[in-house]
Amino acid sequence: MNTIEVFSDDHFMKLALLEAQKAEDSGEVPIGAIIVSNNTVIAKGYNQVEMLRDVSAHAEIIALTSASSYLGNKYLNKCTLYVTMEPCIMCAGALKWSQIGRIVYGTGDEKNGFMRYGKELLHPKTRLEYGVLHETCSQIVSQFFAKKRALKS
Amino acid sequence: MNTIEVFSDDHFMKLALLEAQKAEDSGEVPIGAIIVSNNTVIAKGYNQVEMLRDVSAHAEIIALTSASSYLGNKYLNKCTLYVTMEPCIMCAGALKWSQIGRIVYGTGDEKNGFMRYGKELLHPKTRLEYGVLHETCSQIVSQFFAKKRALKS
Repeated sequence: MNTIEVFSDDHFMKLALLEAQKAEDSGEVPIGAIIVSNNTVIAKGYNQVEMLRDVSAHAEIIALTSASSYLGNKYLNKCTLYVTMEPCIMCAGALKWSQIGRIVYGTGDEKNGFMRYGKELLHPKTRLEYGVLHETCSQIVSQFFAKKRALKS
Repeated sequence: MNTIEVFSDDHFMKLALLEAQKAEDSGEVPIGAIIVSNNTVIAKGYNQVEMLRDVSAHAEIIALTSASSYLGNKYLNKCTLYVTMEPCIMCAGALKWSQIGRIVYGTGDEKNGFMRYGKELLHPKTRLEYGVLHETCSQIVSQFFAKKRALKS
């Protein structure tokens, strides 16, 4: 009999993907994030840049703010952020300030991702993993842009 | 007779310093920002990280969000941000997304400022100036930390 690992990275990334779907349903670039503490989801966020006309309304920032509000603490060193796409420089900067314990992202972002500057943008104690549900996290974004292009032509 | 230049960088930086003072009055690291469009202040912000327990509540982010809300546009390419201290990486990332026309900061921030990575963190069209009212912008922060140390000892 196989053991089902309920609290796996795949499980939590699927929840982040549900957030990304909410962004897509609102016409936003589909990126979603959740924050987990003690295997419990304490915050969620999805990209709302267009709806709020606010460049800082990325999934990660919304989730960070929500998690800090929930915990009553600006530091999130015991939390893990799951986000479907590699954070941008702004979000990496915010994640550094939060001293978040762990970041797991799905697909990379060559154009705007923070990794072109490397892990040093993050807090030295933050652990980093990526590539979880990579294909699905990548497809939801590429299909979004393909649809947009098709509508324009 | 000397001409008084009402809409000078010094003038607007003084308004940003008034915002920094509001931060200090709330027990926050005294950093303030304003955003100007057509010589009119359209947004203000001061550091509220502790009060809101939100690492993203920097003066610049608050001012950006407010300016975008006022203009109904996430792009601020015709605006100037005046901020008393060199923006951090998070704020530089947000300023890039906003495509802000011009950034003027007062004093540098060797530890957390974005300039260790250089202007390339900003949008290529953003103009950058610094050193405006440098002494005053620097003193308000150093005096804040001196007071904090004195209270602790």
